[in-house]
Amino acid sequence: MRKILLTIQYNGKNFCGWQVQDNERTVQGTIESALKTVLGEEVKLVASGRTDSGVHAYAQTAHFMTSSNFDIKKLVPAINGNLPNDVSILKAKQVKEDFHARFDVKQKTYMYQVYASEVMLPLYDDTHTQVSPKVLEHYEEMKKASEYLVGKHNFKAFCSSGSATVDFDRTIYELKIKKQGSFIEFTITGSGFLYNMVRIIVGTLLEVGEGKRTAEEIPEILASEDRTKAGKTMSGKSLFLVEVKY
Amino acid sequence: MRKILLTIQYNGKNFCGWQVQDNERTVQGTIESALKTVLGEEVKLVASGRTDSGVHAYAQTAHFMTSSNFDIKKLVPAINGNLPNDVSILKAKQVKEDFHARFDVKQKTYMYQVYASEVMLPLYDDTHTQVSPKVLEHYEEMKKASEYLVGKHNFKAFCSSGSATVDFDRTIYELKIKKQGSFIEFTITGSGFLYNMVRIIVGTLLEVGEGKRTAEEIPEILASEDRTKAGKTMSGKSLFLVEVKY
Repeated sequence: MRKILLTIQYNGKNFCGWQVQDNERTVQGTIESALKTVLGEEVKLVASGRTDSGVHAYAQTAHFMTSSNFDIKKLVPAINGNLPNDVSILKAKQVKEDFHARFDVKQKTYMYQVYASEVMLPLYDDTHTQVSPKVLEHYEEMKKASEYLVGKHNFKAFCSSGSATVDFDRTIYELKIKKQGSFIEFTITGSGFLYNMVRIIVGTLLEVGEGKRTAEEIPEILASEDRTKAGKTMSGKSLFLVEVKY
Repeated sequence: MRKILLTIQYNGKNFCGWQVQDNERTVQGTIESALKTVLGEEVKLVASGRTDSGVHAYAQTAHFMTSSNFDIKKLVPAINGNLPNDVSILKAKQVKEDFHARFDVKQKTYMYQVYASEVMLPLYDDTHTQVSPKVLEHYEEMKKASEYLVGKHNFKAFCSSGSATVDFDRTIYELKIKKQGSFIEFTITGSGFLYNMVRIIVGTLLEVGEGKRTAEEIPEILASEDRTKAGKTMSGKSLFLVEVKY
């Protein structure tokens, strides 16, 4: 048996997220089906983590075990030859038997894209969320608010209910906010992320940008461990898994 | 009667181009239908020029005449309220009666996006064309080739047949090529463009990048006035009308 690690890019628009579900088109299901064709056996993909419906990935990672002796150098084009245009294998490499795509993650980076405009911009509608131009009014306050989130904290207030998690401590190593005209890009690197954590962080920061909250409320929200104290959960369509590091 | 000029953004993916055609979903047809709802009368849009199937626009322009006295300040949200998500009106302004959206164009800018990769990248598939990594091998030669195209020339060799044009002289004011990693962006500003001219220019320059042609062949191709001497016509899905100046 060999263990293979894949690096995968996908456009999440037409997928019901990563994880296999009955009667739904998922990234995992689509790749497992291509792998079955290529390897001649059923394999199970284990990802660095699930991504929700609509969420994109520049470089998701997932491992699988196989007894096939398919030439690893030809694996990428062989799988891609059996995949639709919205998912692609970027790399495949053999890893040690004790490697685990989820448990061994050291850090992950996500990006979230919005544009502040009264008018909907069709060329950005698939990958960005339109937000009120007001979010630019307190941009510096928003940046200040983001600094309170960096470090190790209990992020329970930034976690959607329905998750089986018991440990809500996570470390954010870096939270960068970049503005270009009316476009804002949030890039967050952390040890790991709770369910909807990035989307709730962005929703909360944008409310600071709008002047609905102050930066100083962030430590209070963290301390509350209460989801209702944080801002809204942003849409999945503008969220990108950028990088997974082991 | 008032004459109104619209600035329009659209994602061309699901449109059969700009111009109204029977039984096809077109940008012109979609906006004219929304205008009929808003103004209560049929109007005819006259664009700065047609765009082909799949071609996108950051800022297309088109005028129409109307006898409606609809408040111009409310026109943009009113039309957008009746448009689907892949087309949006950015601006509306009243213009003089002798203004013409096509005849008065001073210059237009188009952009074309490719990425050089063995692997298809799903996150770029809607807006970029995948090309061979070989195009990067003679990148400087490609830049040199592009310089021969700047200026006033007879571009008949860079025009697809089927156009009714008799005058093939056009002026390219600027042709910029920008490379970031394996991504290449061509931005071309000119007095006007012949049918498929930008797509054939990019196809020809990429063949120079691949080493299939030299920069010095460009003046010969121009002089030949023969379409078969130039490179292939690139796909419409990676072409963007960026700006129209009057």
